[in-house]
Amino acid sequence: MDVNLRKAEPSDMTAVLSLIKELAAFENEPEAVEITEKQLREDGFGQTPSFQAIVAEINGKVIGMALFYYRYSTWKGRTIHLEDLIVNESYRNKGIGAKLYAEVLRYAQAQGLKRVEWNVLDWNKVAIDFYESTGAKLLEGWRVVQMDEQALRKYINPI
Amino acid sequence: MDVNLRKAEPSDMTAVLSLIKELAAFENEPEAVEITEKQLREDGFGQTPSFQAIVAEINGKVIGMALFYYRYSTWKGRTIHLEDLIVNESYRNKGIGAKLYAEVLRYAQAQGLKRVEWNVLDWNKVAIDFYESTGAKLLEGWRVVQMDEQALRKYINPI
Repeated sequence: MDVNLRKAEPSDMTAVLSLIKELAAFENEPEAVEITEKQLREDGFGQTPSFQAIVAEINGKVIGMALFYYRYSTWKGRTIHLEDLIVNESYRNKGIGAKLYAEVLRYAQAQGLKRVEWNVLDWNKVAIDFYESTGAKLLEGWRVVQMDEQALRKYINPI
Repeated sequence: MDVNLRKAEPSDMTAVLSLIKELAAFENEPEAVEITEKQLREDGFGQTPSFQAIVAEINGKVIGMALFYYRYSTWKGRTIHLEDLIVNESYRNKGIGAKLYAEVLRYAQAQGLKRVEWNVLDWNKVAIDFYESTGAKLLEGWRVVQMDEQALRKYINPI
């Protein structure tokens, strides 16, 4: 099975959205995906793209993808955040995820970036073992904080 | 004491770097700051700025700042990440941090963004209590993973 990796194009967003929904279901939050195909096309391929993506295809069919964007560390400078790394369930355990992962890391290293960062669910032992086997480290002591749309509205316009 | 908030300018980066170093010391990692004033000026004020910052000043002296940038959620679309929120030690407990915080949230809300996100050290109870009092939530079950420069090099060029 020949896997081909390439930069995502706007026309891939149908497959990409389907993979995003597959991951959300795996993370037990199938209803959390509010994004649309149109929005992904606009956000990823305009004048100032909000993200980049690499897709994995087999016989012209997209079966996996890595989606990432730049962040900024006030200690290290520009970094990359790997937002999603997804392989369709029928194609798992064939090393395709590892290929996508390495491609993102190569991209970061080629630019001399000092860090690639991402999040993982603490029960996803397969993923954690893989990440640690590659030299990545789980940070100790840090928590993620989020303020959602509703809380934002309430805090800014309390009346 | 009149506090003035305004968008940061390149000439503020001397004060901003000093605040970044102050925060790193507070987080027990004083040696972790590799960034320079020059790099901050280049990264924050070029054609495609890597971050934005708001500074708080008293009598023309910068004594606090909030530094943030866009991220992208494949569930919610564009979001803001608040990387640093720092007030110089001599000016704490006067509500200046809360003003900077609200300014960033207002900026996010004005653009219709669905999320503002940041990280907090789990022992920083004062910060956690404040964030929670504003409607922000600590995520359960998520861990932060990082691959640093050295690990990147080793993984990509293993020889």
